[in-house]
Amino acid sequence: MTKPVDNATIKKMDRDHYLHPFSNLTEMKQVGSRIIERAEGVYLYDSDGHRTLDGFAGLWCVNLGYGRDELSAVAAEQMKQLPYYNSFFGTTNAPAAELAALLKEVTPPQFNHVFFTGSGSESNDTVVRMVRRYWQCQEQPSRKVIISRKNAYHGSTIAGASLGGMGYMHKQDEGLPMQYVEHIDQPYWFAEGGELTPEEFGLERAGQLEQKILELGEDNVAAFIAEPIQGAGGVIVPPASYWPEIQRICRQYNILLVSDEVICGFGRTGHWFGCEHFGVEPDLMSVAKGMTSGYLPMGGVIVSDKVANVLVEKGGDFNHGFTYSGHPVSAAVAVANIKALRDEGLIEEAASGSGAYFRQQLQLLAEHPVVGEVRSVGLVGAIELCADKQSRDFFPDRGATGTLCRLHALENGLVLRATEDTMLFSPPLVISHAEIDEMMTITRASLDHVAKCHGMN
Amino acid sequence: MTKPVDNATIKKMDRDHYLHPFSNLTEMKQVGSRIIERAEGVYLYDSDGHRTLDGFAGLWCVNLGYGRDELSAVAAEQMKQLPYYNSFFGTTNAPAAELAALLKEVTPPQFNHVFFTGSGSESNDTVVRMVRRYWQCQEQPSRKVIISRKNAYHGSTIAGASLGGMGYMHKQDEGLPMQYVEHIDQPYWFAEGGELTPEEFGLERAGQLEQKILELGEDNVAAFIAEPIQGAGGVIVPPASYWPEIQRICRQYNILLVSDEVICGFGRTGHWFGCEHFGVEPDLMSVAKGMTSGYLPMGGVIVSDKVANVLVEKGGDFNHGFTYSGHPVSAAVAVANIKALRDEGLIEEAASGSGAYFRQQLQLLAEHPVVGEVRSVGLVGAIELCADKQSRDFFPDRGATGTLCRLHALENGLVLRATEDTMLFSPPLVISHAEIDEMMTITRASLDHVAKCHGMN
Repeated sequence: MTKPVDNATIKKMDRDHYLHPFSNLTEMKQVGSRIIERAEGVYLYDSDGHRTLDGFAGLWCVNLGYGRDELSAVAAEQMKQLPYYNSFFGTTNAPAAELAALLKEVTPPQFNHVFFTGSGSESNDTVVRMVRRYWQCQEQPSRKVIISRKNAYHGSTIAGASLGGMGYMHKQDEGLPMQYVEHIDQPYWFAEGGELTPEEFGLERAGQLEQKILELGEDNVAAFIAEPIQGAGGVIVPPASYWPEIQRICRQYNILLVSDEVICGFGRTGHWFGCEHFGVEPDLMSVAKGMTSGYLPMGGVIVSDKVANVLVEKGGDFNHGFTYSGHPVSAAVAVANIKALRDEGLIEEAASGSGAYFRQQLQLLAEHPVVGEVRSVGLVGAIELCADKQSRDFFPDRGATGTLCRLHALENGLVLRATEDTMLFSPPLVISHAEIDEMMTITRASLDHVAKCHGMN
Repeated sequence: MTKPVDNATIKKMDRDHYLHPFSNLTEMKQVGSRIIERAEGVYLYDSDGHRTLDGFAGLWCVNLGYGRDELSAVAAEQMKQLPYYNSFFGTTNAPAAELAALLKEVTPPQFNHVFFTGSGSESNDTVVRMVRRYWQCQEQPSRKVIISRKNAYHGSTIAGASLGGMGYMHKQDEGLPMQYVEHIDQPYWFAEGGELTPEEFGLERAGQLEQKILELGEDNVAAFIAEPIQGAGGVIVPPASYWPEIQRICRQYNILLVSDEVICGFGRTGHWFGCEHFGVEPDLMSVAKGMTSGYLPMGGVIVSDKVANVLVEKGGDFNHGFTYSGHPVSAAVAVANIKALRDEGLIEEAASGSGAYFRQQLQLLAEHPVVGEVRSVGLVGAIELCADKQSRDFFPDRGATGTLCRLHALENGLVLRATEDTMLFSPPLVISHAEIDEMMTITRASLDHVAKCHGMN
């Protein structure tokens, strides 16, 4: 074991040498980092002695909560026995094979195969490689374009960031988005619905997919990709009219439908996968995060028979993969994690136990003067902060109020995330009713603080 | 712990549900997989009771060898304490900070910062994002093109596969290579050198970089990326004239030089990084594999002061990153792995101990009738199988002889890799002289088998 290093030294090491992801590098050099030292259940403990309730499950991933020692034991045992071997040359390892079979059990019936990756980004890159190969095998190589949505998040590789519709990422890279990716508008009623009812708006936004297909020519379109609920975009739950219409359009034009389940998957919505909440039947699902509860890096693409049969029967070599595809230690941890989610009834809990309680408590905040809307599905939810409930107008300097609210919550012991002025919740699925109460108490205080700052209390 | 599953069941699970990376999916359904069950030192043990010497270190990654229980202990301890937390919102974790500082110690002097990723593919994607952002901050946004080489391997994401120059990957994806990537020819003297001396050929191939820059206009070129020694391409060691000329050209035209150290890094060449073997001073290095010896997934981009200073001073937000960037468990294992490589003198061993012995023993095979050339640097090497030593003509049906040789070695207890008819070696750095002898004995028998099949014995 390495000798413990004191906190001041760690902070200096961090500041001097670590370029943090999605951070302001200028500020980080000045301000430095807070060291998260340990965690247990839904609580984080930093090196300055603060305890914080993690209302965000790490980064939408620690579904099983922290401190599950049986996962550490599984990892250590597998690492002692076989820390690594590749799956490239006709070899496999037991945890990867077991995980593939277990995924078949927990995914919808059309899914019987998995392609393993190391992250959600790699999963979405794999989706691009795989759908283009599928159409090539189907002798329709012109089907190259993947349609996605503005304000979607599909990872941070070149392909992931291109599929994603995040302007702040595209602006920093003169080569983004890459060729053969097209974006339509998002089903974000609160911000963009105007005078339409949610139902009308859902149909209008889904209809853009059909318009885009007709504009591009259906013979040029490979797939449509979307998160069932946009996560980083702001926990955007589409109107009920949206997904059935998307499904209809994909079927009519023979477009592959890809559900990005990196955030929604593995119980977050009270179903194993977010598409099930909406009754959608995708052809591919990209997964990561909740697959291992973040305890180790892993991702995958879940492949329907429709796609797998073509790749197996007509494809021969599939020249794609990663060194860590099917990593035995990550796979062993994923197996233990998924079995725990299943055997402890945490999916059902997210649906009708803690998920229902969370919904009920969140609803109580809807009447707060600075709240325009609350919404949740299972254990993922959002609060829209706004200046006017009726007009749904945001506060001036959009984003500033969300930051104000987030920092107030953090100072009072709760991690929330803000996307502009939308406050996001995604706690571990093991969160108790008392912990939900604590989360809501701090949230309400932060809303009061926002109201006070805007002279609305 | 999960109950052990019997081998027949595992094989069935694998065949029914696991789409393997870089594999013939049609054949895999018919033939199925061999289960690698455990490993120790340089040896793999499969579920059928076979012991195999791993001459390939997993997949160029298990530099420290298998069965290092201190790495399992570190992983388990870190996982108990803090299995995951993100580095996005002003937070860090001790292992990631320590690893950043340790990387500063083992990398060349121009490097003081790291951006963490989860794999080599993600590292090269990060390179693309970072160099374009660098030029944007320098107010030269037209510098978008990255020049790479045919037969290079830089990963399997869309960007990785585009930077890579693998025709068999590009052929399967109508969208590859992506825009803003250009390829020049590789410095593969044995196959493509013709009548030129290696020195002349090295200058000719390096000169193609200058021609390409002039053709594109230097104001449009962001960077040149290359593996110091092409790995998957066939352990191609460039002539001595090559790298100094590349360095000169990059400096003259102010092009960022990126060394892909995913295979060469962490001791493989007898130096910490492959660029050091050639005396090259890159601006960025992409790393993975040997960083953790493959025990857990992790990668990174090592960033020179030239680039980091611009990102920190002029860049502000850098909107890029991965959920698993700086994963605490992977980072803890990387720290333990790098300290072991350092403290056990394994870099020096690869240079002048086992590396020198390997070179000497490999040289003894140069006289074999089917061998056209042997080459090695540290503990990475290659044997060119060919029909005629003088003309350097390969056998007809190129690739078939390499497969023949590889399968014979495997049946006799040795994992080698074949790129077409080039046999590749990349054993764990802990390999002993006796184990090198065993590797060479089996290799010689496989060469004899090749000679016999071609009627050359």
